[in-house]
Amino acid sequence: MDEWDYQEIDRGVASGLIICSVLLLAGVVFGGAFLNFVSPMSVLIVVGGTLGATLVNFSLYDLKHAWTAFCDILLTKEYHPQERISYLVRLAALVRKNGLLVLEDEASQTSDRFLSMALRLAVDAQNSPDIRSILETEQRASVEKASHAINVFEAMAAYAPAMGLIGTLIGLINMLGKLEDPATVGPAMAMALVTTFYGAVLANMLFLPVAGKLRNRSEEEAIVKAITIEGVLSLGKQENAVVVEQKLQGFLPLAPAA
Amino acid sequence: MDEWDYQEIDRGVASGLIICSVLLLAGVVFGGAFLNFVSPMSVLIVVGGTLGATLVNFSLYDLKHAWTAFCDILLTKEYHPQERISYLVRLAALVRKNGLLVLEDEASQTSDRFLSMALRLAVDAQNSPDIRSILETEQRASVEKASHAINVFEAMAAYAPAMGLIGTLIGLINMLGKLEDPATVGPAMAMALVTTFYGAVLANMLFLPVAGKLRNRSEEEAIVKAITIEGVLSLGKQENAVVVEQKLQGFLPLAPAA
Amino acid sequence: MDEWDYQEIDRGVASGLIICSVLLLAGVVFGGAFLNFVSPMSVLIVVGGTLGATLVNFSLYDLKHAWTAFCDILLTKEYHPQERISYLVRLAALVRKNGLLVLEDEASQTSDRFLSMALRLAVDAQNSPDIRSILETEQRASVEKASHAINVFEAMAAYAPAMGLIGTLIGLINMLGKLEDPATVGPAMAMALVTTFYGAVLANMLFLPVAGKLRNRSEEEAIVKAITIEGVLSLGKQENAVVVEQKLQGFLPLAPAA
Amino acid sequence: MDEWDYQEIDRGVASGLIICSVLLLAGVVFGGAFLNFVSPMSVLIVVGGTLGATLVNFSLYDLKHAWTAFCDILLTKEYHPQERISYLVRLAALVRKNGLLVLEDEASQTSDRFLSMALRLAVDAQNSPDIRSILETEQRASVEKASHAINVFEAMAAYAPAMGLIGTLIGLINMLGKLEDPATVGPAMAMALVTTFYGAVLANMLFLPVAGKLRNRSEEEAIVKAITIEGVLSLGKQENAVVVEQKLQGFLPLAPAA
Amino acid sequence: MDEWDYQEIDRGVASGLIICSVLLLAGVVFGGAFLNFVSPMSVLIVVGGTLGATLVNFSLYDLKHAWTAFCDILLTKEYHPQERISYLVRLAALVRKNGLLVLEDEASQTSDRFLSMALRLAVDAQNSPDIRSILETEQRASVEKASHAINVFEAMAAYAPAMGLIGTLIGLINMLGKLEDPATVGPAMAMALVTTFYGAVLANMLFLPVAGKLRNRSEEEAIVKAITIEGVLSLGKQENAVVVEQKLQGFLPLAPAA
Repeated sequence: MDEWDYQEIDRGVASGLIICSVLLLAGVVFGGAFLNFVSPMSVLIVVGGTLGATLVNFSLYDLKHAWTAFCDILLTKEYHPQERISYLVRLAALVRKNGLLVLEDEASQTSDRFLSMALRLAVDAQNSPDIRSILETEQRASVEKASHAINVFEAMAAYAPAMGLIGTLIGLINMLGKLEDPATVGPAMAMALVTTFYGAVLANMLFLPVAGKLRNRSEEEAIVKAITIEGVLSLGKQENAVVVEQKLQGFLPLAPAA
Repeated sequence: MDEWDYQEIDRGVASGLIICSVLLLAGVVFGGAFLNFVSPMSVLIVVGGTLGATLVNFSLYDLKHAWTAFCDILLTKEYHPQERISYLVRLAALVRKNGLLVLEDEASQTSDRFLSMALRLAVDAQNSPDIRSILETEQRASVEKASHAINVFEAMAAYAPAMGLIGTLIGLINMLGKLEDPATVGPAMAMALVTTFYGAVLANMLFLPVAGKLRNRSEEEAIVKAITIEGVLSLGKQENAVVVEQKLQGFLPLAPAA
Repeated sequence: MDEWDYQEIDRGVASGLIICSVLLLAGVVFGGAFLNFVSPMSVLIVVGGTLGATLVNFSLYDLKHAWTAFCDILLTKEYHPQERISYLVRLAALVRKNGLLVLEDEASQTSDRFLSMALRLAVDAQNSPDIRSILETEQRASVEKASHAINVFEAMAAYAPAMGLIGTLIGLINMLGKLEDPATVGPAMAMALVTTFYGAVLANMLFLPVAGKLRNRSEEEAIVKAITIEGVLSLGKQENAVVVEQKLQGFLPLAPAA
Repeated sequence: MDEWDYQEIDRGVASGLIICSVLLLAGVVFGGAFLNFVSPMSVLIVVGGTLGATLVNFSLYDLKHAWTAFCDILLTKEYHPQERISYLVRLAALVRKNGLLVLEDEASQTSDRFLSMALRLAVDAQNSPDIRSILETEQRASVEKASHAINVFEAMAAYAPAMGLIGTLIGLINMLGKLEDPATVGPAMAMALVTTFYGAVLANMLFLPVAGKLRNRSEEEAIVKAITIEGVLSLGKQENAVVVEQKLQGFLPLAPAA
Repeated sequence: MDEWDYQEIDRGVASGLIICSVLLLAGVVFGGAFLNFVSPMSVLIVVGGTLGATLVNFSLYDLKHAWTAFCDILLTKEYHPQERISYLVRLAALVRKNGLLVLEDEASQTSDRFLSMALRLAVDAQNSPDIRSILETEQRASVEKASHAINVFEAMAAYAPAMGLIGTLIGLINMLGKLEDPATVGPAMAMALVTTFYGAVLANMLFLPVAGKLRNRSEEEAIVKAITIEGVLSLGKQENAVVVEQKLQGFLPLAPAA
């Protein structure tokens, strides 16, 4: 739960993106005609068109949030339900020994905004139904936010290949319209296909995997938060550490890393 | 909530549509053969065919409403759940000080038809169950209307590329039937592909983004209306401003701009 | 609710089908090679193949009913929930003045089979729970029937393009197998593509729009029937016209023409 | 309900399969190059590949059952809910006159295994909750079995065209790799396309219609069984024939042949 | 239930994979140009690209688990609900004769981890609600794990053909860019298509069937576990063998091998 862990680059995501990039570069360079793959017009049509369609489809707020979510998944944020359970069980023992106020210290030490908020509430609030409703509202809010970002990336994964097709059609129609010199047919068609290529790469090596990652992370996050809510409510009632552990283990089957 | 805000062009939607148009124009002109992309027959087949299929599929009423909905999304109508909450909390304080009749003035000042209706009901109606049922009927009505418009645009997004394919097949069959002069093959194929191009552009740069926007707007609108219903019911009961705020904040997690 | 209205051709559906046909004809004739588009073999494969697959998939009863449903949507059958409400409110006033027996006359005058049956039940039946259960059984029956017809048309919309592909493959394989005279390649390919063309036209200009129309009609019909059930039950209880109106207005949000 | 009826070939399914076969044959022979369509390698790849993928996907038991289900739909097994209702109403009158033991005879005369079992249970069992639970378990079992067979055919409908594509790619790559004699290009491509053809035919003229038929039959069967369960329970209670009829008619809206 | 049975290769899965491999090899070798199908670059792009996208989409833990699940399905693990029922019924008789402690022996003899755990719990635990909740948590956990592995394979089945398309586009663009010697066009296109071929093979002969198998196995496993839970709870209560059998037979309709 220390801040360092949080700031590290996610090795899975990073290596996935690097593998894809290296393979593309190798495939392109290996053919000996790197310049065939450079087409500013194609970039404009695919990237610009996807952006344009997405701007119509979503509000600026949604796009901004999707960008934040994308940056976020580059950083390790592996959710460890088991670790969170052990942590909460340790706190339960501590609270029984030293009272609820020890949670104040813990709240100020953790880098996890949700955990910190939950611990502070456990110390401050008198009646637990309010804590539960506040924390569950918070939990639903982050699930909702994630689902908006997933929608944005899935829409982009659908628009990008379509823009690739549109760009390729523009290239083909231009080429076929002036079919005089057969020698120019090949390069012109190559140019036209580059747009399809960009669209396919963006959708399948970026947008779809990112949307999938966001979905997986959102599910894991929801489980860790559910564990935290139950755990903190138990802390507030100063329940026995063994009881707390037994109660929280019930969430594990839902967690992928169980 | 002032009328100006309502009448402004939606910057996201407008810039999205402009970006798409400029990119298309650039792609077309850049190829130096603008005339290849002008084909009245292709326009007729794609636009007419899509319209024809949509006329069979939906009632004239649905089409008229879909058109209204389309014009509507060009105007800013960003829903601000937080603003609506603050506004209702302010009214709650006002009502406690000056009585329910102050809502009459507010109702006549707002440009939001639903808010105005809700405020008038809070002043007039005696028993709140009726207010709730009338307003929720109204809310469900606008969700239903939006979902009909979304259906129209999604159907058009499916018909347009199909009509593009049909037009291209007509062009190809015509061309292949009289395959005498190889010099005419290129331009004839270009002509045939233009119909596919039109279909792909209409579906991916217009119908799909518009359908997506309508869906997002409808969801946001439903949340603001739900907040308004709860808030106005609290006003009718002259509840405390703090209580009203706490109650309405619970809706925020569902709102994208939370 | 007069019989004339019922028998009129539906202007939306008719104009949609005419627009599609005229455009196809224009596209085909415009190319100057009308005969390229006439291929009895292709018609056989697409129409016959679609029919064959549909015969395996559905019972003869389902196909017969789908045909009836298709003929039906050519006739105007716009459902006017608002009109039905006004009509039932008028009856409510009449019943309060002249007694339940006036419904006998109304039942014999209307051309709407369901309305007529409902009115007769209101006069005859003593206990209303039975009326409701009989009418709701009737309502569910027509929804079920419509959904079977929709399934048939959606299946045909999936089979037709597949048969088009199969026919085109037959044509291509035949052509490629005897690739001696290059001059015959063009016309042979044109012939092969005609089957794809037929499949795409049938699916997108006939089967899909008809399936969509059936779905929309079925939804509207269900709402008008729900209004009729509630209204007739109120008539049986000789409720006040104002109460009846208020009760029935609650259905309007669900109706597209609200 | 006599055994002959049961054993007859289903005319809808048979004529559908015959129409498809005749059309294919006509299309193939009409082109004058029947041998182009004979490719043992293509048959092996499409049929073998589909079988291979299905063997991985499903257990041997599922495949065996899917084969039984396929043979079954060739035989008429039209479910007549109305006939079953009349039959049960007739039995109800008989039981009131002659006692429950007449059901013994009926059970031994019917060819319908489920009906026979239900009638025997009505005679033997004392307490009806057990009869209902045994028969509903039996009903759920056949729905489950049918859904497994449907899954098998839908998976095969997805694998067959994919195997067709794989076979065509093998053919194309082989052909392109030794592109020396242009005269062989045509026949080689024809050969390659035959595999796609086989895949499309199997999926759209066999697997998909069969899966659809199984789904429709399973739904109809479930309704007739539900009618039988309710009816037999009423027989056990020696209810009045009119009451039994009224009760069972409520199932009809769900039946397609209502 | 002996360990041998568990360790055997699943004949269905094995023969399916062998059939697919032999057919591919035959198709490739039969064409006489085996080398056309060997393209290390294509392997890299399809396998590497699919791996890269999957690494972004899922956590390393999910991938590791998907691999375990894949190895697992190569081994026979046919679930026999009927056998499990007979086994539990036999135990019920044994327990009535010799007391609960006989389950200790059974628990140490079975190779089924879940069964062993359930039996031990039946001996040790006093109150059955705890046994049920522990075992159901365990059951849900394995369903969840399986669904994660299914997600991984379905994502790979979607990414592989997309990577095939990307690789083919790279090949085509490279080829078209230097369209000088027509003699090299064929082999170059063959090379380009090999990547599409790899993607189609991986998706349709490996990933999709494996995902389907995992789904089927997970469903069967859940039923056997549900039977085990009910049975072991009955053992704990020392219920009569006949009652136990009757209770457990109710699960059979859900099992495919019923």
